[in-house]
Amino acid sequence: MTAPRPFPIEPLTRAAFAPFGEVLDAAGAELRMINEGTTERYHALAHIDVGAQDGKAIVSLFRASFRGLPFTVRMLERHPLGSQAFYPLNADDWLVVVGEGAARPEPASVRCFRATGAQGVNYARNAWHHPVLSLAPSHDFLVVDREGPGNNLEECWFEPADQRVIAI
Amino acid sequence: MTAPRPFPIEPLTRAAFAPFGEVLDAAGAELRMINEGTTERYHALAHIDVGAQDGKAIVSLFRASFRGLPFTVRMLERHPLGSQAFYPLNADDWLVVVGEGAARPEPASVRCFRATGAQGVNYARNAWHHPVLSLAPSHDFLVVDREGPGNNLEECWFEPADQRVIAI
Repeated sequence: MTAPRPFPIEPLTRAAFAPFGEVLDAAGAELRMINEGTTERYHALAHIDVGAQDGKAIVSLFRASFRGLPFTVRMLERHPLGSQAFYPLNADDWLVVVGEGAARPEPASVRCFRATGAQGVNYARNAWHHPVLSLAPSHDFLVVDREGPGNNLEECWFEPADQRVIAI
Repeated sequence: MTAPRPFPIEPLTRAAFAPFGEVLDAAGAELRMINEGTTERYHALAHIDVGAQDGKAIVSLFRASFRGLPFTVRMLERHPLGSQAFYPLNADDWLVVVGEGAARPEPASVRCFRATGAQGVNYARNAWHHPVLSLAPSHDFLVVDREGPGNNLEECWFEPADQRVIAI
């Protein structure tokens, strides 16, 4: 039996992340001056998509603990009824793991991005992603997702041969 | 002519702020353990209300500059079509000025709250409030508000006799 293969760790950019959702980053965003010129508005970094089946947008705070390194990616999840946006409240880098696939994520499609403390992501509805992965002992995120009726969570667990490892 | 009267500066609490919207504060929020027990979810700190006239929720970043102290409150604004949530990305305290009134804010109703760097607010639809007031040279906020058709901004300017001052 061979050890799980490590991921390449990719920088988080809008272009690379486009298949999975939006990158929330003031850098490169549309800038509007408001409030008599005293405030810069970096406009519409994310578009919230939670209206299916009478869903409503809510804002929550996630406090993520460190899950250890190397870390084996054993599963991904997705939200069939809504987008889910994360924005970091700490300055530390963090990790974003995503995959592509209709009924289940294709193991070969899974990718790992390293986000800075000034970058968030908005997972598109139905985009496969790993639960939040902190690189700090404790990392807070503001989260905009969906509350409402219906089943908004699917999980897919990988066979051992399809698992890969994050080693930094 | 007398100088404008200063506001009492009130601590920001859910109870005191209830007429104007929600306080986003992990302290006192409903806590759910998620992600195999590795993440604390402080659930639904704010409920986004932007659906009127086909509005959609968007996430933006506001970079507020310091407007000086003492600061004269000359106007309030409100958003007839949507709530507007602010959460600070810096650790500094900041100020929240709100008022009550149907057609226009009653000058005697205007209040000034001091929020910590771990407290946000979600102004309710139609709640009169002042544009963001930073106490730091530069203060970033994540903002969840509305994009869509219709006029979503009303401003009301106070007569000089009705203006009050923030002096800290």
